[in-house]
Amino acid sequence: MASKLPSSRSKSTLSITSKVVTLQTSDEACGPCKRDNSEDYAFCWCIDCAEGLCSDCEKHHKKSKTSITHRLIPLLKLKDISDFLRNFTQTCCDHTGGSFTFYCKSHDKLCCPGCVTIHQKECHEIITLGEASVDAKKNGKIEDLGLRMKEALTTLNELENHKKDNIGMINAQRNGIRTTLSEMRRKVNDYLDSLEMRIEEKLLQAHKECIEKLETQTKDLEKRTETLKTWQSDITMVKDYGSDTHSFVMSKSLENLMTELETFNRRSTENFVGLNLSFVTSTTFENLQNTVHALGEISVNKSSTELIITPRKSARIKSKLIVK
Amino acid sequence: MASKLPSSRSKSTLSITSKVVTLQTSDEACGPCKRDNSEDYAFCWCIDCAEGLCSDCEKHHKKSKTSITHRLIPLLKLKDISDFLRNFTQTCCDHTGGSFTFYCKSHDKLCCPGCVTIHQKECHEIITLGEASVDAKKNGKIEDLGLRMKEALTTLNELENHKKDNIGMINAQRNGIRTTLSEMRRKVNDYLDSLEMRIEEKLLQAHKECIEKLETQTKDLEKRTETLKTWQSDITMVKDYGSDTHSFVMSKSLENLMTELETFNRRSTENFVGLNLSFVTSTTFENLQNTVHALGEISVNKSSTELIITPRKSARIKSKLIVK
Ligand SMILES: [Zn+2]
Ligand SMILES: [Zn+2]
Ligand SMILES: [Zn+2]
Ligand SMILES: [Zn+2]
Ligand SMILES: [Zn+2]
Ligand SMILES: [Zn+2]
Ligand SMILES: [Zn+2]
Ligand SMILES: [Zn+2]
Repeated sequence: MASKLPSSRSKSTLSITSKVVTLQTSDEACGPCKRDNSEDYAFCWCIDCAEGLCSDCEKHHKKSKTSITHRLIPLLKLKDISDFLRNFTQTCCDHTGGSFTFYCKSHDKLCCPGCVTIHQKECHEIITLGEASVDAKKNGKIEDLGLRMKEALTTLNELENHKKDNIGMINAQRNGIRTTLSEMRRKVNDYLDSLEMRIEEKLLQAHKECIEKLETQTKDLEKRTETLKTWQSDITMVKDYGSDTHSFVMSKSLENLMTELETFNRRSTENFVGLNLSFVTSTTFENLQNTVHALGEISVNKSSTELIITPRKSARIKSKLIVK
Repeated sequence: MASKLPSSRSKSTLSITSKVVTLQTSDEACGPCKRDNSEDYAFCWCIDCAEGLCSDCEKHHKKSKTSITHRLIPLLKLKDISDFLRNFTQTCCDHTGGSFTFYCKSHDKLCCPGCVTIHQKECHEIITLGEASVDAKKNGKIEDLGLRMKEALTTLNELENHKKDNIGMINAQRNGIRTTLSEMRRKVNDYLDSLEMRIEEKLLQAHKECIEKLETQTKDLEKRTETLKTWQSDITMVKDYGSDTHSFVMSKSLENLMTELETFNRRSTENFVGLNLSFVTSTTFENLQNTVHALGEISVNKSSTELIITPRKSARIKSKLIVK
């Protein structure tokens, strides 16, 4: 158990180390001291107990019977230890606090004393953890596990790449759809522009024809009016200056001409032909809103494919997409 | 007959007059002198012969038996005489050169001697032009003709006004159609804009959903990769620093975790689900060019109406349009 104030020797050593530790492991505390409500910086890490130890506790840990075999690693290495390993305890999840002490070969399972009572009934190959662990570091099993991990890593990378490719593709598809949309819209606008121009031309033409016809008719009426006015002045002139005979002959001639004019006037008034320009909207165009409800539909489709990741050939990975 | 060079007296008179004449009647020549291949300016106008006379010829015209009754008017009045009156001859169109000498009451027709031979067979009321013309200027017939003319003039004016109204209406109709067209076009554009916005929103939403899903999956893969990497480092750490037992227990735990991961990997590769954004054009929108052939049709319609022109009430004219 460490005193609250370490000896001047260890203190000086600790202060140097703790600086490094502080930087690299963020104030790792000594496990045993903490449980004793004391406080001290860890100096090393017991990989078996999964906790830090101060220099004082380290000494006791090394000579204590229960922890004499425990492996200690320098605190500097701690940064390479994951939370998983840090929190890894060799205890059973099914039986609280039960340390793994056995190994059932039939079930390939670590057993705490609690587990053993269950396995014993039917399993005949329960051995101690010590027996099971003989040569564990040398029998190649760890290397096998390492290979499986490497392979899984490759697969995960491959999957991640495909997901990222998919993101890129989705972006490209969105851009493509945007281009298609604006292209479609442009085409329809061009088409409607052409229809508008066509009807504008027709309107221009029809208007021109109407105006020309009406102006011709107006000119004819003006001419008739002009002629009639000269007759009025002529008959006055003849009455004022001419003889009775001249007046009589002139009257008779004008009477005939007037009869003609009156016939024209009667026909024109009885059946006055007016011109009207009209526009009838195309029903298909008018119903556009009822027939065209959308420019189209956006859909998200899932495509299932099998990724072929060439097994084991670590470095180069061949992947093949097979659309199901 | 006038000499080519008029006497000094008449010349001076003429020169003054001719200036006025020139300005007002554009070089009216003397008819008799012209026929004698001589040339002289007219001084007055014989309304019966319908030609100009120089002062010399005028004197002879006034005392000659055949023209003693002819009415002469001052040349200044000539501007008020129409081409119709100028060219008016009291001769028959059916018999060349035949002057009107008779009047057939049955047919209300002026007759030359040639005509009389035809009418005589059946008509019993042929009288001389002299008899027929008695009081021609006083019997009110000319006034009647004047009223008919006035009425016809009113009708012609009315017709002309209606034609001009029609021109105004046609212009207004053209402008109205133009407004309608641009209004229609604006509406359709607004509608297509709204459809475009709607599909843009859908695209945005679908894209967002895809990306979110893929990023979640990518993050999961990254997390698994990260975890796997810590396992790799952990197993190495345990192998390097831990006991055989620790290594064995760790291996067994990791084997189980690896089996889980490998199952996940196998499932993910065997059935890799890719997402695809796609756009399907609405067929109605795509077929727009096949369904909408025009914005509409321009047509010119004739409307027949009866113009009611209130008769005789000279000044104010009431006109009513009755659509037939
Ligand atoms: Zn320990
Ligand atoms: Zn301690
Ligand atoms: Zn257990
Ligand atoms: Zn068992
Ligand atoms: Zn005469
Ligand atoms: Zn003359
Ligand atoms: Zn007759
Ligand atoms: Zn005749």
